[in-house]
Amino acid sequence: MADDNSIFVGGKPFMNYVTGVVMQFTTKNAPEVIVKARGKFISRAVDVAEVASKRFLNGQVAINNIKIDSEEFQNKEGRDVRVSTIEIALGKL
Amino acid sequence: MADDNSIFVGGKPFMNYVTGVVMQFTTKNAPEVIVKARGKFISRAVDVAEVASKRFLNGQVAINNIKIDSEEFQNKEGRDVRVSTIEIALGKL
Repeated sequence: MADDNSIFVGGKPFMNYVTGVVMQFTTKNAPEVIVKARGKFISRAVDVAEVASKRFLNGQVAINNIKIDSEEFQNKEGRDVRVSTIEIALGKL
Repeated sequence: MADDNSIFVGGKPFMNYVTGVVMQFTTKNAPEVIVKARGKFISRAVDVAEVASKRFLNGQVAINNIKIDSEEFQNKEGRDVRVSTIEIALGKL
C-alpha cells in the first residue's frame, strides 16, 4: 500500500477500506488510488470505489479506469483454479 | 435480453450466464454483449465475463469497456439504500 497507493479489499469492516481510500487522497495527497480485489471481494471493491468517490470525495475524485483479469493457480489438491480480479483506478479531478 | 444483447447476472447456475453470452456471440452473431449485475452479483458478472471471453471465446472476444455506478432507492421501510452496479461490454475482435 505504501509505494503504489493501492488498497486491497478483503474481509475487514467496509469503512476501513473507504477511509483508506479517502486518506490516500487527502492526508497523503495521492493523485491516484487503485482499489483491488479478488474473487468474492470484487463486489465489495466496487462498493468501496463508489462510496469513496461519490459520497466522501464527490466532485474531487472520479473513476479513471477499470481492469478485470483472471489469475490461475493450483490449489492444495493440485487442481487448476481460476479466480477473477479487479483493479479500479480512482483519480483526482 | 432480446434487443440490446445484455445478460443480467443473478442467482441462477453460473454456466447459464456463460452459455448465454457465448450464444449471443455465436448463434445470434451479436457484435457486442453487455454483462450486467447489481450488488453481490457483481463478482459473479466478472467471473462470467472472464470465463466466456478467456475460456470459451478466447481470441474471438475481448473486454471493450467496463462501467460501474450506483443506484439509489428507498426500501420498504422508507430508508435510502445505495447499490452498486456493473456493466461489462464484451466485443468481437
